[in-house]
Amino acid sequence: MERHFDAELTQLRERLLAMGGMAEQAVGKAVKALVDRHAALAQAVIEEDAAINRLEVDIEDACLGLMARYQPEARDLRTIAMSFKIVNDLERVGDQGVNIAERTLDLLNEPLLKPLIDIPTMAVLAQQMLKDALDGFVRQDAELARAVCRRDDDVDRLNDQVYQELLGYMTRDPHTIARAIDLILIGRHLERVADHATNIAEDVYYLVKGATIKHRLTGV
Amino acid sequence: MERHFDAELTQLRERLLAMGGMAEQAVGKAVKALVDRHAALAQAVIEEDAAINRLEVDIEDACLGLMARYQPEARDLRTIAMSFKIVNDLERVGDQGVNIAERTLDLLNEPLLKPLIDIPTMAVLAQQMLKDALDGFVRQDAELARAVCRRDDDVDRLNDQVYQELLGYMTRDPHTIARAIDLILIGRHLERVADHATNIAEDVYYLVKGATIKHRLTGV
Repeated sequence: MERHFDAELTQLRERLLAMGGMAEQAVGKAVKALVDRHAALAQAVIEEDAAINRLEVDIEDACLGLMARYQPEARDLRTIAMSFKIVNDLERVGDQGVNIAERTLDLLNEPLLKPLIDIPTMAVLAQQMLKDALDGFVRQDAELARAVCRRDDDVDRLNDQVYQELLGYMTRDPHTIARAIDLILIGRHLERVADHATNIAEDVYYLVKGATIKHRLTGV
Repeated sequence: MERHFDAELTQLRERLLAMGGMAEQAVGKAVKALVDRHAALAQAVIEEDAAINRLEVDIEDACLGLMARYQPEARDLRTIAMSFKIVNDLERVGDQGVNIAERTLDLLNEPLLKPLIDIPTMAVLAQQMLKDALDGFVRQDAELARAVCRRDDDVDRLNDQVYQELLGYMTRDPHTIARAIDLILIGRHLERVADHATNIAEDVYYLVKGATIKHRLTGV
């Protein structure tokens, strides 16, 4: 019984990581499609989201099944409960990838507004936060999780910078407005990816320490 | 033991509803502050968010405690697991209230751009979706939950309308750009409130029917 439980828990963890990889890839590909002006790649991100959504439902069912069949306690229970929450964040990261891909398809109908620098940087930061949060989950590393939470401010700052720069474009030339808004919204989607990574990192910290840093680390 | 469990589960449900009421109120007050140009009310929404955040942590702990102490099965287990997810959505609804309040404070530094019609309507719709989703949770009413999911499209349509109208303002007069973007973002915050209500309704449907409508009802 014990051995079955451990095997299933390991499997759960692996599926969660696979889903995390897919969600992170969705964001990465969507931003690559934006930068390379590659419509087919954006389209692929939109189509591949169904697989992420299916994984969410499957992993949730697996969590409930594990709890019902083995009635785990203490840390095992917390691990499963946290997995149940983390898949939710991962699914929404995938949705952000889709949102970025949709905005990208919109932008490809018009000429490039400006060379993109801050947005790809934001994407790299947000993707790395997500990777590290999941890495913290696997390694049960509270310090790594805490460090992810702190990096959220860097992404917010970049997002403000993106916003201010695009506001300047719009004010100088009204023809740029629709495109600038698409880019502002892409900035916000990336900010939300970083927020989801932060949520996951907070959950990991709680899982490891048995205490919450939620609503405490904010702004640190 | 059985009786204690039922009493604690009832208490959990009541706290979840109380938190739902607070989150919904945060959104309502933030939009009222926007419409009435009432800075102190917007400030109150921002300050009151701490109480919502504390409730989230408390209710999560209560869920884990119930699972650990009573090892509930079947529907009871699903109820607790869903509560664990729902508080997460409610906390984020509260955050949307804060976001709207912050944009409102920003907007109050400048003259009114236009009389607000669609945004207050969106707020009413999104708040009602949230109430009905939580009502569906209490009454275990799958049909009510399904109906909430369908209404998400109405909010999306209004949001598109808000966006198009404001795009017109910006194009005609660049002086309106910063204010129009604030209003576009407020529209998106309300759209996200409706998304959270939809998430909750999907969870309620699953809880009652033992099957998921997630990623299926979308767009129905």
